[in-house]
Amino acid sequence: MEVNHISKSFGSKHVLSDINLTFEDNKIYGLLGRNGAGKSTLLSIMTNRNFADNGEVKIDSEDVSDNDSKLGLMYLMSEVNLYADGWKLTQIMKDSESLYGGFDHQLADHLIQEFGLDVNQKFGKLSTGYNSIFKLILALCLPVRFVLLDEPVLGLDANHRELFYSELIQSYSDNPRTFIISTHLIEEVANIISDVIVLDQGRVILNQPVEDVLAKTHSVVGPQKDVEQYTKGLNVIGHDMMGTIRANYVYGDLDDRILPDTVQLSNFDLQKLFIFLTNQYEGSGKNENK
Amino acid sequence: MEVNHISKSFGSKHVLSDINLTFEDNKIYGLLGRNGAGKSTLLSIMTNRNFADNGEVKIDSEDVSDNDSKLGLMYLMSEVNLYADGWKLTQIMKDSESLYGGFDHQLADHLIQEFGLDVNQKFGKLSTGYNSIFKLILALCLPVRFVLLDEPVLGLDANHRELFYSELIQSYSDNPRTFIISTHLIEEVANIISDVIVLDQGRVILNQPVEDVLAKTHSVVGPQKDVEQYTKGLNVIGHDMMGTIRANYVYGDLDDRILPDTVQLSNFDLQKLFIFLTNQYEGSGKNENK
Repeated sequence: MEVNHISKSFGSKHVLSDINLTFEDNKIYGLLGRNGAGKSTLLSIMTNRNFADNGEVKIDSEDVSDNDSKLGLMYLMSEVNLYADGWKLTQIMKDSESLYGGFDHQLADHLIQEFGLDVNQKFGKLSTGYNSIFKLILALCLPVRFVLLDEPVLGLDANHRELFYSELIQSYSDNPRTFIISTHLIEEVANIISDVIVLDQGRVILNQPVEDVLAKTHSVVGPQKDVEQYTKGLNVIGHDMMGTIRANYVYGDLDDRILPDTVQLSNFDLQKLFIFLTNQYEGSGKNENK
Repeated sequence: MEVNHISKSFGSKHVLSDINLTFEDNKIYGLLGRNGAGKSTLLSIMTNRNFADNGEVKIDSEDVSDNDSKLGLMYLMSEVNLYADGWKLTQIMKDSESLYGGFDHQLADHLIQEFGLDVNQKFGKLSTGYNSIFKLILALCLPVRFVLLDEPVLGLDANHRELFYSELIQSYSDNPRTFIISTHLIEEVANIISDVIVLDQGRVILNQPVEDVLAKTHSVVGPQKDVEQYTKGLNVIGHDMMGTIRANYVYGDLDDRILPDTVQLSNFDLQKLFIFLTNQYEGSGKNENK
């Protein structure tokens, strides 16, 4: 699937500015961004629920807009409810099966039991958590090539989040397909996703395999003077001070400079990297003033 | 503050069954529980927004119900909005200041700037994230002895969550008081809270300092036979299998039994403990069947 030159404005606000992305088959992508970065808008444009001002979305080189056979290859689970309140969950599953031409009933029964979902309930009567769970079951059981999940674990407690992640991995391993997961709980998906895409203010600022990204994170900790000396000229994206000890956070390759004995190197995690890359307050010295 | 024998039913459902808790001054409590465990009901009863069928809540040995001077010592930030849509945020802050007899304007100005909140907006026009942020600012700036936070980071992105945790610690250290934080993001508060209370199906199943709790978590990993031999008679609350390697998760003291060379011991984290203690599916062998 290709996203080519997608732009979108609401009034004078540029929500998406010339977005170009390629989603390969059978990969699990994390689509990360701050509130308002444009993630939900992008996902809704990709699935034709919203229209771009410019650009196109293609599957197998065909434009997806108003292309029912291509649109039928994608399912978007999002906060926006597609179903009317008062419909029985069983009816929604049946209708979705007709629409998409299939439904994995065996997996659905398993998930319904594991999550303890009462399918005789009516849509609109569900708690936030079970609303998410019901839509996740549709997303995992419909026969689509691209599963797009926008805040999949909204309202789920820790037990149900863990259960969902493990069922997602199982479903992916039984039936490989492409997942695009947008979430604020970055550390919880860091071990699940193979590639990370970061949107910031409507632009793609990172798009790489997670492994490569994490290999480029370096926290450099030691006496302030030594740390500043060692990191001179490197891409320092954040820092902390604890008394006289300084941590500089570097993103990028370290050259073959010599590490002083007083300074310790390690990697840092994806959520921390995300915060540094997207933090508008970075560089204000906020951490030092405390 | 004391919670004595609080019980509450909705129809035939026992939401809270004989809850007894003591909250000491200047501690930060984590109030954890699954969806539907009774956390929000308990917090709303403690602040007189809801009524218990039995029991009482006392501050300094005085019952708080209909006791304005005691109720004025508590602020509950929750999903329920106390303010009418259309009110200006500045007006709500002014009214709250009159009601509680004080407001930390210096801290409020700092937080408003750090979070980028526009205080000329109207309540009801805020996004989920900024709705939470506004209520958090009230919670931190009002002069109360007990700050009760129900899902404080709802809708906040990773950057704003980190900012909130660091501002909470700063505010607590400048002005120690009691915090009671209810959240599903257990690992994110694990380093902030001093004590953990776990509610499960309306009952308190854990109430201890975090340090003591974590010291009693033991993951025992090794060849299945050795692990089962070593953990015989211990309180095994969960397990995993990876090929022929088994992990048994123990909660409780290990006696002086001898650890085989093939078996490795370490601690596990609060969220994992919580999941094991509250997982109704535990013991079904779910993990092994995959």
